[in-house]
Amino acid sequence: MSEESSFGRAPAVVKPIYFFEETDGINKMLLGGKGAGLAEMTRLGLPVPPGFIITTEICEKFYEAGRRLPDGLMDEVRKSIRRLEGLTGKRFGDRENPLLVSVRSGAPVSMPGMMDTILNLGLNDETVEGLAKQSGKPEFAWDTYWRFMQMLGKIILGIDARKFDGIAAGKDVSDLEVLKTIVMSSKFLCEEKTGKQFPADPYKQLELAIEAVFRSWMGKRAVEYRKQYNITPDMAGGTAVAIVAMVFGNMGSDSCTGVVFTRDPETGEKRLYGDYLANAQGEDVVSGKTTPNHIDMLASKMPAVYRQLCEVTQKLENHFKEPQDVEFTVERGRLYILQTRAAKMNAVAAVKTSVDLYREGLISKIAALERINPEALEQLLYRRIDPHFKQKPIAIGVGASPGAASGSTVFDTATAEALGKKGEKVILVREDTKPDDVPAFFQSVGILTSRGGKTSHAAVVARGMGKPCIVGCSQIEIDADGKSFSVNGKKIVIEGQKITIDGSTGRVYVGEVSTVEPEISLEFKELLQWSSEMKGIKIRANADTVESAALAHRYGAEGIGLCRTERMFNHHDRIVQFVNMIMAEDEEERRQALAELEPRQRSDFKAILKEMKGLPVTIRLLDPPLHEFLPKEEDLMQKIFELKSGGGKKTSEIVRMEKVLHRVHELSEINPMLGHRGVRMGISFPEIYETQIRSICEAAADLTGEGMAVEPQIMVPQVGLAEELAAVRQIFESVKREVEHRHKVKLKIKFGSMIEVVRSCLVADEIAHLVDFISFGTNDLTQATFSFSREDAEGKFLPFYLEKGIVSVNPFQSIDTKGVGRLMKAAIDMSRGVKRDIEIGICGEHGGDPSSIEFCSNIGLDYVSASSHRIPIAILAAAQSSIKQNKRLHHPSII
Amino acid sequence: MSEESSFGRAPAVVKPIYFFEETDGINKMLLGGKGAGLAEMTRLGLPVPPGFIITTEICEKFYEAGRRLPDGLMDEVRKSIRRLEGLTGKRFGDRENPLLVSVRSGAPVSMPGMMDTILNLGLNDETVEGLAKQSGKPEFAWDTYWRFMQMLGKIILGIDARKFDGIAAGKDVSDLEVLKTIVMSSKFLCEEKTGKQFPADPYKQLELAIEAVFRSWMGKRAVEYRKQYNITPDMAGGTAVAIVAMVFGNMGSDSCTGVVFTRDPETGEKRLYGDYLANAQGEDVVSGKTTPNHIDMLASKMPAVYRQLCEVTQKLENHFKEPQDVEFTVERGRLYILQTRAAKMNAVAAVKTSVDLYREGLISKIAALERINPEALEQLLYRRIDPHFKQKPIAIGVGASPGAASGSTVFDTATAEALGKKGEKVILVREDTKPDDVPAFFQSVGILTSRGGKTSHAAVVARGMGKPCIVGCSQIEIDADGKSFSVNGKKIVIEGQKITIDGSTGRVYVGEVSTVEPEISLEFKELLQWSSEMKGIKIRANADTVESAALAHRYGAEGIGLCRTERMFNHHDRIVQFVNMIMAEDEEERRQALAELEPRQRSDFKAILKEMKGLPVTIRLLDPPLHEFLPKEEDLMQKIFELKSGGGKKTSEIVRMEKVLHRVHELSEINPMLGHRGVRMGISFPEIYETQIRSICEAAADLTGEGMAVEPQIMVPQVGLAEELAAVRQIFESVKREVEHRHKVKLKIKFGSMIEVVRSCLVADEIAHLVDFISFGTNDLTQATFSFSREDAEGKFLPFYLEKGIVSVNPFQSIDTKGVGRLMKAAIDMSRGVKRDIEIGICGEHGGDPSSIEFCSNIGLDYVSASSHRIPIAILAAAQSSIKQNKRLHHPSII
Repeated sequence: MSEESSFGRAPAVVKPIYFFEETDGINKMLLGGKGAGLAEMTRLGLPVPPGFIITTEICEKFYEAGRRLPDGLMDEVRKSIRRLEGLTGKRFGDRENPLLVSVRSGAPVSMPGMMDTILNLGLNDETVEGLAKQSGKPEFAWDTYWRFMQMLGKIILGIDARKFDGIAAGKDVSDLEVLKTIVMSSKFLCEEKTGKQFPADPYKQLELAIEAVFRSWMGKRAVEYRKQYNITPDMAGGTAVAIVAMVFGNMGSDSCTGVVFTRDPETGEKRLYGDYLANAQGEDVVSGKTTPNHIDMLASKMPAVYRQLCEVTQKLENHFKEPQDVEFTVERGRLYILQTRAAKMNAVAAVKTSVDLYREGLISKIAALERINPEALEQLLYRRIDPHFKQKPIAIGVGASPGAASGSTVFDTATAEALGKKGEKVILVREDTKPDDVPAFFQSVGILTSRGGKTSHAAVVARGMGKPCIVGCSQIEIDADGKSFSVNGKKIVIEGQKITIDGSTGRVYVGEVSTVEPEISLEFKELLQWSSEMKGIKIRANADTVESAALAHRYGAEGIGLCRTERMFNHHDRIVQFVNMIMAEDEEERRQALAELEPRQRSDFKAILKEMKGLPVTIRLLDPPLHEFLPKEEDLMQKIFELKSGGGKKTSEIVRMEKVLHRVHELSEINPMLGHRGVRMGISFPEIYETQIRSICEAAADLTGEGMAVEPQIMVPQVGLAEELAAVRQIFESVKREVEHRHKVKLKIKFGSMIEVVRSCLVADEIAHLVDFISFGTNDLTQATFSFSREDAEGKFLPFYLEKGIVSVNPFQSIDTKGVGRLMKAAIDMSRGVKRDIEIGICGEHGGDPSSIEFCSNIGLDYVSASSHRIPIAILAAAQSSIKQNKRLHHPSII
Repeated sequence: MSEESSFGRAPAVVKPIYFFEETDGINKMLLGGKGAGLAEMTRLGLPVPPGFIITTEICEKFYEAGRRLPDGLMDEVRKSIRRLEGLTGKRFGDRENPLLVSVRSGAPVSMPGMMDTILNLGLNDETVEGLAKQSGKPEFAWDTYWRFMQMLGKIILGIDARKFDGIAAGKDVSDLEVLKTIVMSSKFLCEEKTGKQFPADPYKQLELAIEAVFRSWMGKRAVEYRKQYNITPDMAGGTAVAIVAMVFGNMGSDSCTGVVFTRDPETGEKRLYGDYLANAQGEDVVSGKTTPNHIDMLASKMPAVYRQLCEVTQKLENHFKEPQDVEFTVERGRLYILQTRAAKMNAVAAVKTSVDLYREGLISKIAALERINPEALEQLLYRRIDPHFKQKPIAIGVGASPGAASGSTVFDTATAEALGKKGEKVILVREDTKPDDVPAFFQSVGILTSRGGKTSHAAVVARGMGKPCIVGCSQIEIDADGKSFSVNGKKIVIEGQKITIDGSTGRVYVGEVSTVEPEISLEFKELLQWSSEMKGIKIRANADTVESAALAHRYGAEGIGLCRTERMFNHHDRIVQFVNMIMAEDEEERRQALAELEPRQRSDFKAILKEMKGLPVTIRLLDPPLHEFLPKEEDLMQKIFELKSGGGKKTSEIVRMEKVLHRVHELSEINPMLGHRGVRMGISFPEIYETQIRSICEAAADLTGEGMAVEPQIMVPQVGLAEELAAVRQIFESVKREVEHRHKVKLKIKFGSMIEVVRSCLVADEIAHLVDFISFGTNDLTQATFSFSREDAEGKFLPFYLEKGIVSVNPFQSIDTKGVGRLMKAAIDMSRGVKRDIEIGICGEHGGDPSSIEFCSNIGLDYVSASSHRIPIAILAAAQSSIKQNKRLHHPSII
């Protein structure tokens, strides 16, 4: 009988410490990334200095016990050090041949530079002599001692690093006696600052270092980093500590230390890439105090070592099937590998290496797609600041619409329009924007606002147009009257001065900064091709213009999921008629104004339908409340005041403006988001929707007559009641019949409803009876579900909510699956319950968000619609969702 | 073998016509109310003239056929007329002894006066002579002919009634020759206007009359009436037509006609009540051209007939077990009953008769409760205009908070406050109101606004305070600067002038109109007692003041379901501190301002808790956004402007106001309903909720210390995420612990959440884990579910939606069961799923709406909370719901 059967199952042995050779690279949760890598390399027989790992469980216990090392741990550490002494032939604290160690942090998830590491531990006034003797290089020994002293002082004792710099300032550190004095002064500094003796006992040093590493897990930087990258406790519960026998890159000219990548992290090219420093330790490379040498130089300086490095790193890449970022040290001509991890790369390199690794037979197509973060592709899709430009921005706001642009600063829409039409590049700078500013958007190359969040008006419109935009840049203070803005109280930019904005990063620069074009590499195209083949859910585009439609088509969009008609009214050649329509005193006048708009809309629709070559084009009927198209109350009052004080000559103009002001008052609302808009307006003024529907039908009839395939879809916004939809459907059918009759054609036009009002989710069955398709408008649905007004929330309490962890992600960026998602699922079930083949999509901004795309794919939507510029991101995200779904299907245990 | 078994089931015989003696009073759907009543009375052997009924199905067929009588119908009518000739011994169209008939409309649901009826049909130049001969009264015959001529001309031929009046004007209609001339002129008028011969053929007349009655079913008045009273096609699909042999009340002094009630419809007293007119026909009584005699006079004029009338009507009441409204005619001393129906009564009479009928053993307690419309009780609960006052109002608005009040007109809040404090009765007249007007509400006896709907700020606040309020009175145009208002352009009321408003009816009167006190009669008390015993769901009150709590307690409320704390801050002696709190520049300052408010709040809570004598009191933490407590932007700007142009002396005041203005700007929101308020504010400024919670705990601890039973419940508004609630719960627990510790008492305080954000319904399971109770806030939930901003919707598109039938009821008045109701049910299921005994209530304004109370009772809520004044209504509605539920349980087929 085995032990197991007589005593029951033995508990999983919880070993606090593992030597590298006892384990392998699989259990990162327990060993941390660094530890697991060292173990795996040891297993592969690569030249790794010996060492051992204190597990992440000990870190958790450290915190459970109120930041105290578990009882007995140091006994285990002592045992392990003795084993390490056996492996190295050196002795810890020995005055003849001392063993020194590095104490390194390493969490399950890579958090580069966020936690502490201590090198050269074990030195004191006695062992330094041993090190000097053994190496035959007293300067090296004292230099090393000094390095240790600083790390210990700074990390363990919490002394300001600049104090140590001060001690060495202006001194000749190559002189042994000088070095000794510096070390002694440093020691004195430590004792003075702490009021305690310098910890000379190596085991005491080790205990303090282990504690310091554990403490750094909850250090400010580490906590911030985890929050920033959404690293939750189930992904990493603590850091491990790797204790490794020191090897020295600072033992002379036959020693060095460096970092190499197996492929160029900027281009993806397959070649050894990196830097090294002769006669140095790791932190010298990282600190940037000395300029390191390009790794190519090592080939000539130490050809054998270089060859070995090439072999070893290639072996690592082949083993991990992923480009590696490798730390190495050469001690007196002998190579040691100190760390390996997956290389972080920019998007260009990620794309190229994915395709290359597949071609080299290292990974499958699926793996090639999986290893790319869709969001990172954004870098490739927009014009960006030249990566070689290193100057500091004057302010940083929220990057709301990616891409970089330079232009003359303009503070009002009229000037922006005037200059823009003359062909000048202008950047519109405003506190915030309104729909009547949209004509100026068309004439600007970029938009910068000091208020608002990623879903403010400026952000949404700019994204729709694909124009770079920064919002919520609260550091700049705009003086609209003075036509200038200041940063931190200093006036720095006046009208006409050039600035450059980067809508991807939110950075604002003074002057014209050079930018680079986006390029769709062959590899990128190939990757998109694979993605398209692998994805399930269809991808459509949110596009309101022919240009945007063309871009979407080029990127592989399978239709337009949202074409907003209000943008068409905002074109400067139409806004006048549109305002006339709003100002109309009765239906007759309104119809007249609408009749003038009809042919323009028709030609817009024709152009877009043509561009999409028979693919579906979902056109949303007018959504925003009418008052959004009128001038602002303050502006009107100001102008009327000016006219009146100007001498009273322009009385007719005053009368007209007072009329407009009166209408603005009439139309103004307390909560416009929940007011008289969308279908609610379409029902009160049925002639508006009638005209729009007629334009669409006429456009379709014209093109059908010309023998072209077209598939317009008419979508009604803000529907909350089936009765609303029925009223619009009646208009649709009678107009369609009439146009069909007149043109003698049969039109194929689908009729559908936005699902963006909560109630529409609850009566989706009734709605389904009346439509061919439904499309979730998750922006508004999220607002109503949370009772969060987007613009108010993002400017006021949402950042605070994110900081406090009340919400873990901004629900306007990624669909809130628990709340909004439940409504969506209910609506899908109810509508498919009465109409199995109903087409269901999503056309909110969430359509371009990878995690939302995954959710949409999982709940069985037919398509997502993303802004034209984000189509490639959406395609890749959709493919990744399919891959995940397939895996779940075939390996359900993975879930 | 019967026919049924050999041929299968025979189709239900669809007879187009029923004689009174062929049927009974049960099938009102087929026979209409009038027809069924006549049939039932015939069956009871009462003196009813013979006649027959064309069914409502024929009316439906009339419309199905495009407003044409079904083929063959007139043949059936001819047959029936012949049968009628047999029953009466007279002949239709006969020149010797002509049969005349009345053609009366009668729908399944009573629609008094909304459809057409034609009397004396069958007369022409020949039959009039027969009538004269038979009666021996040619004047009577020609008078009758003239009456018929007018009805035919007006109803069938569509000629303006005034034309006929014009013919007779100034003439002596008792003179036979004059009468004849009038009739001939009338006939000429008909022919001239229609271009056709006057229809002399009685059958032609009959056909036209039947068509006219059917047409009147879709007449404007009838359609409006059905919409107004929510009469749907399944309740009444068309009108029946009763064709009845004429009896004549206009045959001389031994003839008369009248209407009587079996009980006084104003007091409920059991006595014959009504009017009659000697020598007249029915329309003379109705038209009001002649003043009729009180029915008592009939006792002396025709004692035998009077006795018979008493017997017959008593028999009818006993038979129908309901006070009756009876039409009768006496022809030459002989009594005929022409119609009987349930008497419409005011609330006083309804209540008294219910109790009396029960005491008389006629009906059960259940039936006594069922026959009262809870809404009608509102009349009994508020001071109202003296019913004898008959003057016309100067304007009519929306009655938003019931009750009548007279006072001096005041146009600004400062004057209202000043005069109110001096004890003067003032009525505040404003375009609309804001929270900073609330102190003035306290000092006013009534509020009148020209804008807003039933759920506007003014309406909600006034209802909460139980002050009469009229809103949306768009007929009055307010000149706030000129301190006056005008109606239809005429300035009629200036500041200080007295007006009277009736918040129940929306009527505005100039001057002080006498009003009467509400009285809770003994019968009313008894009825409420019965209701309390019979109802299942508990009734709580929405009450923010001690007075309101006391009223609620008196009416039998079982606790307070909503005590809004913001009202307490609005008291004029606190608003200053509260504004200081808002203006605070950091937490320290804010805490200081809050500390000053704390004792005041504590004493408010103590008083209310005391008043409720151990019943639960649910206190809602601060809900509205802070900017609502600050002055309006325009007002501030105006004042600053005035101060500045005043000479610049008060610079410190200007600085202060500019600070406030700045804060107003900072706090202003685009959609305040979805903004920084409720728990979202409570989390950003935790010290606000902390202070409120402390006040509640301290109040409870004080009273507990005094040996009183108290049950405060703390409720958090606007919760959408369980995480928000968890944050407040933490504050609650630590404050409670601290207070318990200091007072050395154990506090029994429940902690709960409003469910008014859609998302909270979707995560109700998570919320349930954190609370003892939840309470639906269906106002906000309805807004968010529909994406309707209440104030915008009620002022703009909702009236239109109601008119067009897009919504059948205002969802802010009665819970939208299909949408909002589904969310509520889901939330109930989810929360009870994790916490079986969780207490669930509703505290929105729907809590006082009978149909919403029924819904809440059906879905298993523990309580509804209604405004204090509406508690009796809610109690009765709850009892009625229980009765319905019981019936469904025992007679499931009734559903």
